[in-house]
Amino acid sequence: MMIVMKEGASADEIAHVVERVESVGCTAHISEGELLTVIGAIGEREDRVADLGLEGTPGVDQVVPIMKPYKLASRQFKDGADSVLEIGGRKVGGTNFALMAGPCTVENRDQMLDSADAVAAAGATMLRGGAYKPRTSPYSFQGLGREGLRLLDEARERTGLPIVTELLDLRDIDDVVEVADVIQIGARNMQNYALLSEAGKSGKAVLLKRGLSATIEELLMASEYILKEGNENVMLCERGIRTYETAYRFTLDLLAVPALKEQTHLPVIIDPSHAPGRRDWVESMSLAAAAAGADGIIIEVHNEPEKAICDAAQQVPTTEFQQLTDKLETITSVVGKTISRG
Amino acid sequence: MMIVMKEGASADEIAHVVERVESVGCTAHISEGELLTVIGAIGEREDRVADLGLEGTPGVDQVVPIMKPYKLASRQFKDGADSVLEIGGRKVGGTNFALMAGPCTVENRDQMLDSADAVAAAGATMLRGGAYKPRTSPYSFQGLGREGLRLLDEARERTGLPIVTELLDLRDIDDVVEVADVIQIGARNMQNYALLSEAGKSGKAVLLKRGLSATIEELLMASEYILKEGNENVMLCERGIRTYETAYRFTLDLLAVPALKEQTHLPVIIDPSHAPGRRDWVESMSLAAAAAGADGIIIEVHNEPEKAICDAAQQVPTTEFQQLTDKLETITSVVGKTISRG
Amino acid sequence: MMIVMKEGASADEIAHVVERVESVGCTAHISEGELLTVIGAIGEREDRVADLGLEGTPGVDQVVPIMKPYKLASRQFKDGADSVLEIGGRKVGGTNFALMAGPCTVENRDQMLDSADAVAAAGATMLRGGAYKPRTSPYSFQGLGREGLRLLDEARERTGLPIVTELLDLRDIDDVVEVADVIQIGARNMQNYALLSEAGKSGKAVLLKRGLSATIEELLMASEYILKEGNENVMLCERGIRTYETAYRFTLDLLAVPALKEQTHLPVIIDPSHAPGRRDWVESMSLAAAAAGADGIIIEVHNEPEKAICDAAQQVPTTEFQQLTDKLETITSVVGKTISRG
Amino acid sequence: MMIVMKEGASADEIAHVVERVESVGCTAHISEGELLTVIGAIGEREDRVADLGLEGTPGVDQVVPIMKPYKLASRQFKDGADSVLEIGGRKVGGTNFALMAGPCTVENRDQMLDSADAVAAAGATMLRGGAYKPRTSPYSFQGLGREGLRLLDEARERTGLPIVTELLDLRDIDDVVEVADVIQIGARNMQNYALLSEAGKSGKAVLLKRGLSATIEELLMASEYILKEGNENVMLCERGIRTYETAYRFTLDLLAVPALKEQTHLPVIIDPSHAPGRRDWVESMSLAAAAAGADGIIIEVHNEPEKAICDAAQQVPTTEFQQLTDKLETITSVVGKTISRG
Repeated sequence: MMIVMKEGASADEIAHVVERVESVGCTAHISEGELLTVIGAIGEREDRVADLGLEGTPGVDQVVPIMKPYKLASRQFKDGADSVLEIGGRKVGGTNFALMAGPCTVENRDQMLDSADAVAAAGATMLRGGAYKPRTSPYSFQGLGREGLRLLDEARERTGLPIVTELLDLRDIDDVVEVADVIQIGARNMQNYALLSEAGKSGKAVLLKRGLSATIEELLMASEYILKEGNENVMLCERGIRTYETAYRFTLDLLAVPALKEQTHLPVIIDPSHAPGRRDWVESMSLAAAAAGADGIIIEVHNEPEKAICDAAQQVPTTEFQQLTDKLETITSVVGKTISRG
Repeated sequence: MMIVMKEGASADEIAHVVERVESVGCTAHISEGELLTVIGAIGEREDRVADLGLEGTPGVDQVVPIMKPYKLASRQFKDGADSVLEIGGRKVGGTNFALMAGPCTVENRDQMLDSADAVAAAGATMLRGGAYKPRTSPYSFQGLGREGLRLLDEARERTGLPIVTELLDLRDIDDVVEVADVIQIGARNMQNYALLSEAGKSGKAVLLKRGLSATIEELLMASEYILKEGNENVMLCERGIRTYETAYRFTLDLLAVPALKEQTHLPVIIDPSHAPGRRDWVESMSLAAAAAGADGIIIEVHNEPEKAICDAAQQVPTTEFQQLTDKLETITSVVGKTISRG
Repeated sequence: MMIVMKEGASADEIAHVVERVESVGCTAHISEGELLTVIGAIGEREDRVADLGLEGTPGVDQVVPIMKPYKLASRQFKDGADSVLEIGGRKVGGTNFALMAGPCTVENRDQMLDSADAVAAAGATMLRGGAYKPRTSPYSFQGLGREGLRLLDEARERTGLPIVTELLDLRDIDDVVEVADVIQIGARNMQNYALLSEAGKSGKAVLLKRGLSATIEELLMASEYILKEGNENVMLCERGIRTYETAYRFTLDLLAVPALKEQTHLPVIIDPSHAPGRRDWVESMSLAAAAAGADGIIIEVHNEPEKAICDAAQQVPTTEFQQLTDKLETITSVVGKTISRG
Repeated sequence: MMIVMKEGASADEIAHVVERVESVGCTAHISEGELLTVIGAIGEREDRVADLGLEGTPGVDQVVPIMKPYKLASRQFKDGADSVLEIGGRKVGGTNFALMAGPCTVENRDQMLDSADAVAAAGATMLRGGAYKPRTSPYSFQGLGREGLRLLDEARERTGLPIVTELLDLRDIDDVVEVADVIQIGARNMQNYALLSEAGKSGKAVLLKRGLSATIEELLMASEYILKEGNENVMLCERGIRTYETAYRFTLDLLAVPALKEQTHLPVIIDPSHAPGRRDWVESMSLAAAAAGADGIIIEVHNEPEKAICDAAQQVPTTEFQQLTDKLETITSVVGKTISRG
């Protein structure tokens, strides 16, 4: 923590800050500049200095954190290497590009299996589908629940593809764990700490979506809640952030890819479907994600988009998925990656 | 829903949209302008048209929702009147200004009771204090839990003030309900639907905080999850939203006060503490909230701010609370309200 | 500037950074923490270190500015005192609350003079009105130009109120200077540096509006362009910033009031009209601005709002202006200010 | 314009709105739904209804614009085709990918010519370089001015590459026009209407950068100011928008590519340098831009980045530029484009 004093801060004000820093067992290094003084408290106990709440204290101009607040998620923790996860026989991370695809929601057996077949035929890495759906309105369809999980299980049996599916409510965790290869934690739940801890304990791989106004650092801190339970199989997912622009649902933040990869060893996945919210812009964002160096995408495809119950506008028809896969093949090769297959 | 067709949309494209609207049992009204056509589907089943996902359909320029998606929270639902809640003998809403105050976190008996005494002496409406704390870092203090609830109970006995305290995890609901007069749902949990429903079922009053990038409409939709359980005692709380500005923790959005009060009958409370994040700016925001027409504020005060464990910088010393209350008294009177007391 | 090195940065990387800091004539102070090293270069030449562009340099984690980049605008420059401007016999700043009011646009003689009379009768401090209008669309009405300036001049003659009017285009500066007591620089032009410098040289007082996504610091830097021309009569104006919320045109950022007043000696004015964009929410924001401690407001009022050419929805009828003034009188007194009159 | 009335709006309120719509010569189409009424006024005179300012009028819930406010920039204006500009013998738009590169600022003869040679050798489309620099601080280097223009002229002579350079101040337009093949209008000046009109009149091609919180629609409206002067050679440029994220300078909004290309016939260029603000992330964003379908990029490269005067951290060394060009070659081919060369 660097505590920057105001120009003209008095000796007493400086002494008071030093005293408070030392009161929590930290050493205060004083740097006197021509015009102002900076008090440094660098070390593992930076959080204690943060807890002092020195912002707004007389004579203090600003309090600047220096240490990263996350540990297990940091790239240093793996000595600079990338984590390569192994999920149902598929690799994610490093030079492997994970292509996860499937419908937004499990709707019925035909829809799920037809979509699954097309996804498998195009050579995807995993199959996605939601049995529990977080909905802004309590009056909207909330997912098939257990029946949806059963259909996902059948789709895996049939295609061999590992399953990615969302966990919304702690009370469903046993049911979800029985079927999921990857537990998805949605953007709205990124800071639902009870859910994060339990997903961590489940031992299943976790795909953690960035909250729609979460910073890079907050996403990493949220992953720390999972990692600290001893679960190393965590993927981070950017899915669009909230900005002032209303021409699309969310602004897809692809700069998060290089920024995250500098800070963390965890794989970084992009969801190219929710930000555009309409299928004709999804290919553009999928290719851009691959070119930006993402470790994979999770994309919504549907055998009959016009009949989709949920987020219909953004479901890409399975008939167009093969062509997208071909383009991704070329682009991932430019950035040194290959689509991961079983 | 109004579906605005592009200039030059073909007759076939228009017919296709009409057909899809009618396929879900809605009537499509066609308005042909000089340059483009608008297809209206106004009615209670607007959500069905929304589910069609017509965005990006050939010929469609934009899809504009017309109906409010919330029902029970809407001002019309109460025929234009304000809801006046009755909580532990205190009124909230209408001409009543609720002054809720207390420390961020329950830390120990002396701190809690001293703070409670000062809050009561200044004539506050309710007492706040957190026993469970949502923390960005898994390594931070997470609250005293049950012991904290016990101390809140004691503070109520002693002062007679109703208690506002946060519920974080469904598994703690029975403990919280035993002590709380008002269950607080924090900003991070605004769209934790399981938590909202259970808080609704608890029968306790609920203070629902706006998520840090939630729209006015999303806040109202979240309240709908509580209201639909038959619980009418809901207060909405603006506590600062996330913007690009880094000079403060959050941007306090006081325009939400008149905007919410136009749309809903529910009381609107302002949290003036978290956005500034430092105590010397809290009075300014408290007075502004009252002048803007808020139905109350929930403010963090502490008997010894420098020793506070959590959010220390923003705790207002109890010694300054009486003076703030006096100023609030004058300002609320200008806007036709009175501080609510037992 | 503090240059924070990554954990594990090599000795060579550290030496390279030190060398570069010294290459621009600055002294590098090295603080070695347990886990990482911070290199400080504190001093007046911080800008030179900034220009080195050390972000992304091998081993560098972050580069944190320490010094404020503005000088003349800083509170220290006036030894902590508030500037009190004197404009046409009216004081602005300190304990004086400036109430500036008038129509968005000068439309015709009757409208301007009727509005001016009502503003004067209610005891406002200054009269506002736009002769040149910045319009998003090239097809919209762009203002009466010189004829508008002439009518403003007549309104001043008649009421004695100083005139606030916007300068948009350098080529109009002589005309505007002839009439204006205060030159308004609009939000879109906050970083139009040529305009700022020339307004500075004009010797007239300047009301500088915050750009709609400008930070507090950028607003202060923009004022520095005016101040450095020797013009001390600058007022800063918050008028709503752009956020994700669509329920209003802009989000009025009242926290900017205490935040600016901590950093600068310049008066801080609030425009309560543009953020709501509708007249029934303007009173709420006007009162909130006064309660927050602003040094004044600049509000749009009109004798016949329904006939207004520009921003009609947000013009407050002059018939309601007296009542608003009365409420402001009480609220400003709570925060130790008085409406400034000639 | 669709005027959506509130549920329960009275017949008088509806009649009043209809009357006002008709008072400006528009026809009001009334659609009565089960719960509410919508009044449509669709047509070329929508702007007149907008000027009525019906927001906040009794009984009115919301006012929704239907028509696009831009005309010449719209895709319809070119019957759905892409504009292909011809600038100094290079094509921009359609299947042509424009690779514009060069230093942020012209610093001296060696720097400019060395950088220009490298840019030319790698097969770029145009050369960029700033002679006038917009700087947040009045104390920063403001560019070489005319001497910079002279060096750009020499670089063009030598390499044959067309020149892109920024115009900041109307008073420099004759000098800039003498040298520039493309006049760049920077983000801060996107709504400097005098500058836009004069750039339009100059007859030179214009690269218009999106303001850092401008919407897609506002960018198109700004281009309309140039187009209406009879200048068809306009390129739009996304360079990063301002969001809450502080891990990078700006958030690069690549969704703007498909969104703009749907609305306009004008070429869409991406600036991959300013948003990251550090060179090691620029390649990622350059490739992503190409994959997203952009019509070109404008990237900062420098022969000796460590010595750069301005934005040093983001200058890509010319030694790495050839490799980047090779990767762009492959990616543009996936999306059906080719790097444009003379």
